[in-house]
Amino acid sequence: MGMARPGLLVKGLVFDMYGTLVDAGAVAEACRELAPDPIAFNNQWRAKQLEYTFLRTLMGQYRDFWTVTGEALAFAVARFALEMTAEQRQRLMAAWLLPTPYPEVATALPRLKATHLLAVLSNGTPEMLRSGLEQTALWPHFTSVLSADSVQRYKPSPEVYQLALQHTGLLKDEILFVSSNSWDVLGAKSFGFNVCWINRTGVLLDTLGLSPDLVVTNVNELVEAL
Amino acid sequence: MGMARPGLLVKGLVFDMYGTLVDAGAVAEACRELAPDPIAFNNQWRAKQLEYTFLRTLMGQYRDFWTVTGEALAFAVARFALEMTAEQRQRLMAAWLLPTPYPEVATALPRLKATHLLAVLSNGTPEMLRSGLEQTALWPHFTSVLSADSVQRYKPSPEVYQLALQHTGLLKDEILFVSSNSWDVLGAKSFGFNVCWINRTGVLLDTLGLSPDLVVTNVNELVEAL
Repeated sequence: MGMARPGLLVKGLVFDMYGTLVDAGAVAEACRELAPDPIAFNNQWRAKQLEYTFLRTLMGQYRDFWTVTGEALAFAVARFALEMTAEQRQRLMAAWLLPTPYPEVATALPRLKATHLLAVLSNGTPEMLRSGLEQTALWPHFTSVLSADSVQRYKPSPEVYQLALQHTGLLKDEILFVSSNSWDVLGAKSFGFNVCWINRTGVLLDTLGLSPDLVVTNVNELVEAL
Repeated sequence: MGMARPGLLVKGLVFDMYGTLVDAGAVAEACRELAPDPIAFNNQWRAKQLEYTFLRTLMGQYRDFWTVTGEALAFAVARFALEMTAEQRQRLMAAWLLPTPYPEVATALPRLKATHLLAVLSNGTPEMLRSGLEQTALWPHFTSVLSADSVQRYKPSPEVYQLALQHTGLLKDEILFVSSNSWDVLGAKSFGFNVCWINRTGVLLDTLGLSPDLVVTNVNELVEAL
């Protein structure tokens, strides 16, 4: 699937963070000492983290992503009937401060930066984003690093995507929003961005009557498409 | 867990519909001819249905619950790589118009009605709710049957819970909201209702820093608690 010459208009690329630039699944490594099935445990943790961002936004009960991540961890620990020490909790949470970039990201970003403004727009707190991007040496590639925290609600609320316009000074059709998360892709499309879906694992698009302009399997393919 | 004398103040009981009064899992029966694992298929259908209500509300892309239910069905069919004829689709969707009440509901509601105003507040469309309550002969027990459709957004948005105040004329602390869905229980609690959680299967409460006032395992226990 391709865009009608996206390169003609697009001046800025706005990336989601977790699952898109860095592998949220890699947190499972940190779960290994706690959970007999670390992947199932991490999937439960991640699913609840996401659900809680939706629920808290709908209820008007915003708390920041670090807090929500901790609340979701508490649910996953209870759900799997595990015991977690304070030290183990600290190590698990710390995995979100030291994430693992997908392998092609470090070399692909400089190529994109040569021609486009680059930004990050994430549910993560400013502290989580700064830590994650600094620890992985990705920080210098981005002109803006934007957190949903500044509008006290989570994606796919339009107010969050709006941040990208305010902080880059670009227009909607000058931005290509890039995410691996189907719901984030469709939220950004609903907002009015051009959208690229990085579908790394061949999952199905959600059936919400919207679709991305471009689908690739990794960031290198995005470089080639632009 | 109990309320501090809930009976003293509570004048109206407002029930969620699907999963609370009627068994959304019973739709799995209708999935039997289509899906080799009808329970897994129905769980996927139900999970996507719910996720899409959250996403559409957050995006400001409301479509009614019948439409969302059909979109979620399309996802589940694709996810399980099934073939579905138009007739099969019609039968699956029809299961939502002819739901199965939980066994104690038909006898428990008249006992509650003797002392309390009874209402339904659901994400379902007015047509789905009317059909479901008429086909199961539960309709006459309710003074008000309220649909999220009238505010064009889904629970746990406060605007949906607000409908119960507008239509019953009761105050927040005169209402006991009753649901089996953890996220709905917490949404109603966040809104300010007294809340009863019917936890039929001993699942865990979500860790959002809120908790119900009363927990029972079925509607008979609610009758006894009031």
